[in-house]
Amino acid sequence: MAEAGLEMKKLNYSVDSCSSFSATYFPENIMKDFPTDQASRWSSDSNIPPQFILLKLERASLIESITFGKYEKTHVCNLKKFCIYGGLHPENLVELLNSGLKNDNQPETFSLKHLVEGKMFPCRFVKIVPVQSWGPSFNFSIWYVELVGTQDWEAVKPCIQWYNAYREREAIRLCLKHLRQNQCLEAFECLQKRTKVQLEDPLLSELHWAMVVKGDYEATEQLLHRAVDNGLFGPYIHSQDYVPEWSRILPCIDEDPCHRPGMRGGHQMCIDTNTETIYLFGGWDGVQDLNDLWSYSVPSNSWTLLSNNTEEEGGPSARSCHKMCLDQDHRQLFCLGRYLDSQHRHTNNLKSDFYMYDIEQRKWHLICEDTAAVGGPKLIFDHQMCLDPEKRTIYVFGGRILTSSSGMAGAFLSEPQFSGLYAYHIPTSTWRLLRDDPSGSPGLGPIEMRSRIGHSMLFHPSERKLFIFAGQRSKEYLNDFFTYNVDTGEVTTVTDGTRRRDPAQIPAAGFTQRATIDHELNEIYILSGLSKDKDKRDDNVKNSFWVYNIVDNKWTCVYRNDSSREKESDTSNRVPGEEPCPRFAHQLVYDHVKKAHYLFGGNPGRSNDPKMRLDDFWSLRLCRPSQGQLLTRCQFLIRKCQFRELTEADPIRAMFYLQNNLSAVVDRTNDEQMAEFHQLTNLLFRTEEQQEEDELLNGKVDSAESTVNSSYRLRSSVFDALARFFPDYMAQPRFSLTDFVAFDKA
Amino acid sequence: MAEAGLEMKKLNYSVDSCSSFSATYFPENIMKDFPTDQASRWSSDSNIPPQFILLKLERASLIESITFGKYEKTHVCNLKKFCIYGGLHPENLVELLNSGLKNDNQPETFSLKHLVEGKMFPCRFVKIVPVQSWGPSFNFSIWYVELVGTQDWEAVKPCIQWYNAYREREAIRLCLKHLRQNQCLEAFECLQKRTKVQLEDPLLSELHWAMVVKGDYEATEQLLHRAVDNGLFGPYIHSQDYVPEWSRILPCIDEDPCHRPGMRGGHQMCIDTNTETIYLFGGWDGVQDLNDLWSYSVPSNSWTLLSNNTEEEGGPSARSCHKMCLDQDHRQLFCLGRYLDSQHRHTNNLKSDFYMYDIEQRKWHLICEDTAAVGGPKLIFDHQMCLDPEKRTIYVFGGRILTSSSGMAGAFLSEPQFSGLYAYHIPTSTWRLLRDDPSGSPGLGPIEMRSRIGHSMLFHPSERKLFIFAGQRSKEYLNDFFTYNVDTGEVTTVTDGTRRRDPAQIPAAGFTQRATIDHELNEIYILSGLSKDKDKRDDNVKNSFWVYNIVDNKWTCVYRNDSSREKESDTSNRVPGEEPCPRFAHQLVYDHVKKAHYLFGGNPGRSNDPKMRLDDFWSLRLCRPSQGQLLTRCQFLIRKCQFRELTEADPIRAMFYLQNNLSAVVDRTNDEQMAEFHQLTNLLFRTEEQQEEDELLNGKVDSAESTVNSSYRLRSSVFDALARFFPDYMAQPRFSLTDFVAFDKA
Repeated sequence: MAEAGLEMKKLNYSVDSCSSFSATYFPENIMKDFPTDQASRWSSDSNIPPQFILLKLERASLIESITFGKYEKTHVCNLKKFCIYGGLHPENLVELLNSGLKNDNQPETFSLKHLVEGKMFPCRFVKIVPVQSWGPSFNFSIWYVELVGTQDWEAVKPCIQWYNAYREREAIRLCLKHLRQNQCLEAFECLQKRTKVQLEDPLLSELHWAMVVKGDYEATEQLLHRAVDNGLFGPYIHSQDYVPEWSRILPCIDEDPCHRPGMRGGHQMCIDTNTETIYLFGGWDGVQDLNDLWSYSVPSNSWTLLSNNTEEEGGPSARSCHKMCLDQDHRQLFCLGRYLDSQHRHTNNLKSDFYMYDIEQRKWHLICEDTAAVGGPKLIFDHQMCLDPEKRTIYVFGGRILTSSSGMAGAFLSEPQFSGLYAYHIPTSTWRLLRDDPSGSPGLGPIEMRSRIGHSMLFHPSERKLFIFAGQRSKEYLNDFFTYNVDTGEVTTVTDGTRRRDPAQIPAAGFTQRATIDHELNEIYILSGLSKDKDKRDDNVKNSFWVYNIVDNKWTCVYRNDSSREKESDTSNRVPGEEPCPRFAHQLVYDHVKKAHYLFGGNPGRSNDPKMRLDDFWSLRLCRPSQGQLLTRCQFLIRKCQFRELTEADPIRAMFYLQNNLSAVVDRTNDEQMAEFHQLTNLLFRTEEQQEEDELLNGKVDSAESTVNSSYRLRSSVFDALARFFPDYMAQPRFSLTDFVAFDKA
Repeated sequence: MAEAGLEMKKLNYSVDSCSSFSATYFPENIMKDFPTDQASRWSSDSNIPPQFILLKLERASLIESITFGKYEKTHVCNLKKFCIYGGLHPENLVELLNSGLKNDNQPETFSLKHLVEGKMFPCRFVKIVPVQSWGPSFNFSIWYVELVGTQDWEAVKPCIQWYNAYREREAIRLCLKHLRQNQCLEAFECLQKRTKVQLEDPLLSELHWAMVVKGDYEATEQLLHRAVDNGLFGPYIHSQDYVPEWSRILPCIDEDPCHRPGMRGGHQMCIDTNTETIYLFGGWDGVQDLNDLWSYSVPSNSWTLLSNNTEEEGGPSARSCHKMCLDQDHRQLFCLGRYLDSQHRHTNNLKSDFYMYDIEQRKWHLICEDTAAVGGPKLIFDHQMCLDPEKRTIYVFGGRILTSSSGMAGAFLSEPQFSGLYAYHIPTSTWRLLRDDPSGSPGLGPIEMRSRIGHSMLFHPSERKLFIFAGQRSKEYLNDFFTYNVDTGEVTTVTDGTRRRDPAQIPAAGFTQRATIDHELNEIYILSGLSKDKDKRDDNVKNSFWVYNIVDNKWTCVYRNDSSREKESDTSNRVPGEEPCPRFAHQLVYDHVKKAHYLFGGNPGRSNDPKMRLDDFWSLRLCRPSQGQLLTRCQFLIRKCQFRELTEADPIRAMFYLQNNLSAVVDRTNDEQMAEFHQLTNLLFRTEEQQEEDELLNGKVDSAESTVNSSYRLRSSVFDALARFFPDYMAQPRFSLTDFVAFDKA
């Protein structure tokens, strides 16, 4: 709002009402900020929901933010989770925020959602609903609330006008939808003429006329063809969750089965999207570190052993927990870091060597014997490395620094050290330290980038940002998510990770999760790895696949492979081997051009075979229905409707129709649709009672009382289903009036 | 439902979905009852709301009850609080139950609400929503769920038909209301003609025509006169909360100020509703027990000292914590029990004497020297005593038995003893023990009446039941509520008191609460007394007044006098002395004919003056608006509307109208209305911006976009307000379509 040139100021309010209060903790106390006074707070009399406090602003306002003051110490009654609603009338509020407070003494400010349908949303009332307190089973306390926004009438007025007009228009549209659904076409036209409110896009009105009024199924299908040709199902497709499609990549039949990489974990992979070539180097096979370098060509489905022993060819020694990145334009692979067992950590062994592999020349170059000596990182492992192709700069963040174990006591006693953020400029071969690891406890002031291991880091070329997520720091599992602008050095928090969230809504804090980015779709993908509870590894090796939408700031879990669930799900129809078994220390790369992920190897975490590593190779595609598939689905709905009408009129013709026209549009890969298709035959033979029950559950009203004939009702419900594939702005309201009929009088 | 002759059986269901689950605690586990298996349960993955499990029945059914199985031991994940919803479609469910489980190993069965608008409600889906677990911050577990009901199609079918027709009719009525509100009268008539759905009673349509369409304010007022004459506002009045009206009863000016009862607590009072005479006997004045007997005549506002020393006149000795009851038909007072300090508890002193006072003869009779010797109770205090005038039987329940303190050690060591339920038949002067106190811990089987002190007991003459509520048993505060049928001996639980409830919704467990009954209105009144936390008495002496509606099984708090709040509320406009100060050990009687309560004396619980007792005397009336008052309120609304229209058209006339017509119908006892009346003058002088803001907040839409002119809108909103005074079955739907416009797309 600040951009709109409005002056933001503290808004006056009074307390309109609250659910309860205890003793002298009156709700009005939240208007005063006395952090040193135990008593200066509202406290509910109970933690049984619903608890709330309703604030009334002096005038209708546009609210930008809310600030919660706190007590000078932590307090069990602080709100770990709360919701905030706002609006012009107490009985019609919209959710503005769903968040929680830290249990500390620092005031916290949250910006409130103030856009609805792209318009600024006016509020007269603000309702704060506590959901959880920090101390389980404690009552809820709020110490101080400040609201900031504007009550400038020139700014607020158009928002209220828009809000009123919007509500009125939507209410009329609900009426129009209901009238048409109930075949009250005369009243429908009267109302449309008088109000000039459009129920929907003319294309959909045409569809309704053809399908519902005329029963012209051919014209209906034609109209849907037209919709698909114009890409109108695009927004619907975009709103669908991805469905993962794993497929195992098996070697060509005539290939030597040994001529492919062996079992390993902790290896590295890069993909060249120009040539669709994957490079794989090193790892740990359960017994020893490896030093073989492979390439895999996707088009020819073939592995090539580029080097059997990179060390012999002037390349890096056998290693694992190193990192590798690819400069696609210059066809160069860079390799940095490694893990060393403590018995090998001698001073002369702790140099951080840095190699480049020239793909054209098939030749390794030692860039530097020890990056630490030229301003780069010390020898590290479990760091992250990204390449900015535009500026030909490599960013290295985190990783644990290996220190000499010759003085055993010292090594054990000293705190582990983590490496900061470094940049390596390829053309000049120079290192720069951008951020050192902030030692000591995290400050409360501006964000500090705490170094770590086992995190994820991705480079977004057009946003010019590194996206950094999660990881581990000694015994602390981090769950924060932030960005680092490589040009300005600015750090922005996406999620600070200190607030408890529903584990079903974001990936759990973990270790060795693998992440990829699609900067065109603005999506980040995370395949979660080892669970944080190491003691329960056997139970806990699950993989879940998450999509983070950068623009919407929203996580979605599209896939879970749960080893505990697996044992139980023998009865499910999942074919074993259709998807990779749960694992960690695997490697995942993504081709953003072909939209394909590739997964290789890892550690399945079997307690009875701890040395076992995997050598399986998978591709993963995230699928959404295509426009064509949606068209077929629409056709199935339309033809099912026509079939149902035919069963009443002409059962013989219906049977033919089922076997030919309907059968032609069944999606045979969709079990549910197949089952439904097979059941349709039963419609021809069902009893009167079954038919009756079916109709009644679909909302049929006795013909004597109803205005709608039964085929109009049937077609109308199919039309509603078809309308849902169209974008919101084109279609009739999604809700129906009958959904709102309240039974609470009873 | 059993009466309807339907066979009830276990209903098959599947689990449709759930919010989350953890490890192997799959939702399907609730279909099997294995109380010995820790793992045989659904357990959510989080306790962050909303958590739910959605069950889908095999067929649409009428559900009678739900049974929860449990684990063989108590369990922290058991549901302390949950809600159950049901319906035909998952997106349209109705609340069927709001309750909680005990944390034990006993299965619990709850009947589910299955009537909606008096019709049986069909369900296909049942949603269980856990709200709190017994262990704070534990996840929710459900061990086993069984649903009982019928899926007999002949029974279910008419219910679904009714449900569908009801939803369709109500949706049409929402449309009709909206069309009329938006002045789309042509569409309104089209729709009404086609569907034949009535929006409201013809009287209200007439009212709408006169008020909104015609602006004929005189006719409007005439119609409301007619409504009041026909008592149509009755249901509205009944739905209003009582407002307490305390008034202090001061002696007549010419009366000797000493000629009235002195300060006391622990006294007894009875009221003779035939003569409006209150009898008062005994009590403790802070120093000693009293033995004076008084009568107070309400009509003449005068006290009469019937006896200065009852003991000298052959009546009971000075005493407190005794009980008294009145046989109104035979004009006899009965008096039983007393408290004795431990130093006076000698064997020869512990006889339970029983006296009758003959009002006509003004004479005491000793009925019995020791009721214990003739089958009645031992010497007790803090018991309860009720009289059944029809059978001339006195019921005595509870009270603590006084035992000899000669063997000091014995008295201290032995558990306190409580007296059972006794009946005394006046004509034959015989005692009967109906129920002895169940010793030991409460059983889990059929309910046992545990004896107690400090409870309330009331007799309902037409229901033939004693209503018994709360009390104390040693250190345990009871919060149960049950009835005892005096003819059959049957005990029925109203609330078992073991479930935690929101203290804002029922009276808190306490001590010395005073209760009265109005068997004509089927209401019980409770003036809460001493709080359960004795340590905090100073803070905690609050009085709240509760109404319990026997038919609706519903508590309402109509009044709170909170000593802690009082200190803070200097700024409020409450006149001190307008209501009694908080207290306990007071006495309260109720005249159900004149609908008046009378309160005398008590202990204000002042820690700085512990001997202080009160001698103030109050009457309390619970008021609801009268039909006449409502008519005036309607007239105020109507004339305010006319005034607003006049301000636009003719400001001078408007001014006259305000001073005469409007002024005539202002309720000058209603501060809010007075303030509003005074502000109306400002309407004549308000700025354009104020007018604009006012209109916009009332939902005005820019005239270019709207179908409604501004006076129609104004009148329409007043009509809506008037319609709310009419019974639901006569009026348009309470909700408006715009209330349902969803903003959740944003």
